[in-house]
Amino acid sequence: MPVVIPAADLAEFVTALFTEVVPDPGRARTISDVLVWASLRGVDSHGVARVPRYLELLASGEANANARMRFTAGAAGVAVLDADRAPGPVALTAAADEAVSRGRSRGIGAVGVRRTVHTGAIGYYTSRIADAGLIGIAFVAGMPNMSYPGVTGVAVATSPLSIAVPATGDRPAVLLDMATAGIALGKIAQYRNNGRQLPEGVAATADGTATTDPALATMPLPLGGAKGAGMSLAFELLTSVLVGAPILSSFHGADPGGRAHRQNALLVVLDPAAFGDPATFTASVTETLDTLHGLPSADPAAAIRYPGEHSAAAAEERAANGVPVNPKVWAELQAAAEQLGVALPAKA
Amino acid sequence: MPVVIPAADLAEFVTALFTEVVPDPGRARTISDVLVWASLRGVDSHGVARVPRYLELLASGEANANARMRFTAGAAGVAVLDADRAPGPVALTAAADEAVSRGRSRGIGAVGVRRTVHTGAIGYYTSRIADAGLIGIAFVAGMPNMSYPGVTGVAVATSPLSIAVPATGDRPAVLLDMATAGIALGKIAQYRNNGRQLPEGVAATADGTATTDPALATMPLPLGGAKGAGMSLAFELLTSVLVGAPILSSFHGADPGGRAHRQNALLVVLDPAAFGDPATFTASVTETLDTLHGLPSADPAAAIRYPGEHSAAAAEERAANGVPVNPKVWAELQAAAEQLGVALPAKA
Repeated sequence: MPVVIPAADLAEFVTALFTEVVPDPGRARTISDVLVWASLRGVDSHGVARVPRYLELLASGEANANARMRFTAGAAGVAVLDADRAPGPVALTAAADEAVSRGRSRGIGAVGVRRTVHTGAIGYYTSRIADAGLIGIAFVAGMPNMSYPGVTGVAVATSPLSIAVPATGDRPAVLLDMATAGIALGKIAQYRNNGRQLPEGVAATADGTATTDPALATMPLPLGGAKGAGMSLAFELLTSVLVGAPILSSFHGADPGGRAHRQNALLVVLDPAAFGDPATFTASVTETLDTLHGLPSADPAAAIRYPGEHSAAAAEERAANGVPVNPKVWAELQAAAEQLGVALPAKA
Repeated sequence: MPVVIPAADLAEFVTALFTEVVPDPGRARTISDVLVWASLRGVDSHGVARVPRYLELLASGEANANARMRFTAGAAGVAVLDADRAPGPVALTAAADEAVSRGRSRGIGAVGVRRTVHTGAIGYYTSRIADAGLIGIAFVAGMPNMSYPGVTGVAVATSPLSIAVPATGDRPAVLLDMATAGIALGKIAQYRNNGRQLPEGVAATADGTATTDPALATMPLPLGGAKGAGMSLAFELLTSVLVGAPILSSFHGADPGGRAHRQNALLVVLDPAAFGDPATFTASVTETLDTLHGLPSADPAAAIRYPGEHSAAAAEERAANGVPVNPKVWAELQAAAEQLGVALPAKA
């Protein structure tokens, strides 16, 4: 049975944990915001389950608790944020806000982020842009953990794409947040634990051969083969290579630091007001979503959903009734609280 | 056996055909450029096989041979091109050039395109941006022709994404050009004609149920289910809805013109020089591609390819040895030539 914690108490608790290890209290709050946001939305793989790992990365210095982040700009519409190994939530939140201010005045803007550590759920940053009334697009590149057509072993990363589009007030924003893999690594483990065969064409053995046997599967196949592989490679170029911090060539090369965890990102912001009337835009987004909902249903018992709708409903439910925390994760959080001298939140 | 035509002669012939029906000779040449480019690269589905259809659209007025295209801009970094139903090659080539000029000075720029007809291979426009030394990203939305999870019948479009990234001189640009569908409609027909079962999870019956029987399959399933469906929906919002020309809501609604063919697009340009040293960038792109090529091969007889590499090799081969034209397409081109009084090209 999961432990259920009221959302506000969970946020305060996680903030208190990070406040013990990150000198800037605003940054501690930001890390908590991003992780609790994912937990609220039911994206548990990217939620407070990651707190222990973030604490570990900060303790080891792999993530820099005192990062001196620095924006540089070579042109009016764009900037590059050198994150100095700041945790992803700290770096990408700053980058999203900078992208919003560059995009709003010029119709479009972008911020590249170099050398951050664990971005978390990238939908948080595009949602933040959508909350400002703008369209957000995020590309991220990480460490190779996926196969590539014709290659033996891991080749490219499951690098994600997120697109968020604001709708009118009563409808949650459209929020696409997807990896370029056919299946998440964590899902492969679930199939293994449940002794179920994997679907065809989503996972591979260590040598890159497709398999449906979860005992043999060690990595995901790219989404749709060449398409997901091509997106992943393109995202490495749009992020890591663009900001001068290549991962793929360094990981597979002779670079002694090539396998140290790091991620790079590119956030793009579009201002609907530069393309037409912004009120017409959001109304038309809503009309499109209404149209989708009204299409003939294949199963009247199952709702037709747009991206982000399900997790927005989960967020509403969990905000009201508390956030379920897996018992194993709860034990880890208790241990962290004891170690750092932080009081545990009350259960719901 | 295909008819083989020298590339330059084919280009001249196709230009001559369009010159008979499009008053502006520059536009006729542009339409030919885009279609012949696809044929050269082996993308025959988007190549000169489309000439008869383009001529038909121009003859019927569905595509406007005399389009009065007009750029409007609401902010420095972006513009919207009202294409006035110009054929896609005419509209998107102009849009790509405008996006290059906006992006180069500001680091990033974008052009939305409303009301064009048949974009052709969208890789042409992103390649054109990469040829100018910049990164090109294109999103396109078209007429619904694909299923969506939970919906009976066609719901969304197989809307494509293209990303082009320039490499150094001796390597062709990285060119991703992919639909958001699990399989192309034309490929379903090929399986049907060859009596072969479809792969799992790529095609659906008319009511949206997944099928591997090509006789029952009438439309593609979205790439990876929710991922491809979400991308397609997001692209409709980033293009059609952003430029004030929604397709999805109009197609499924009461709008009497809702089912008339049209497409919308968004082209985004990023200037590597605004993010760092541009020579370092292209050198690092090349190093990344070299690294990919050097990874352990699953099959020493099969090359590891990056997106666009195979079609660049095809273009080189076809430029040297001529472009094979399917006999059925050749017969249609002969008929068009006769009707329009245009001389046929000599065979290779």
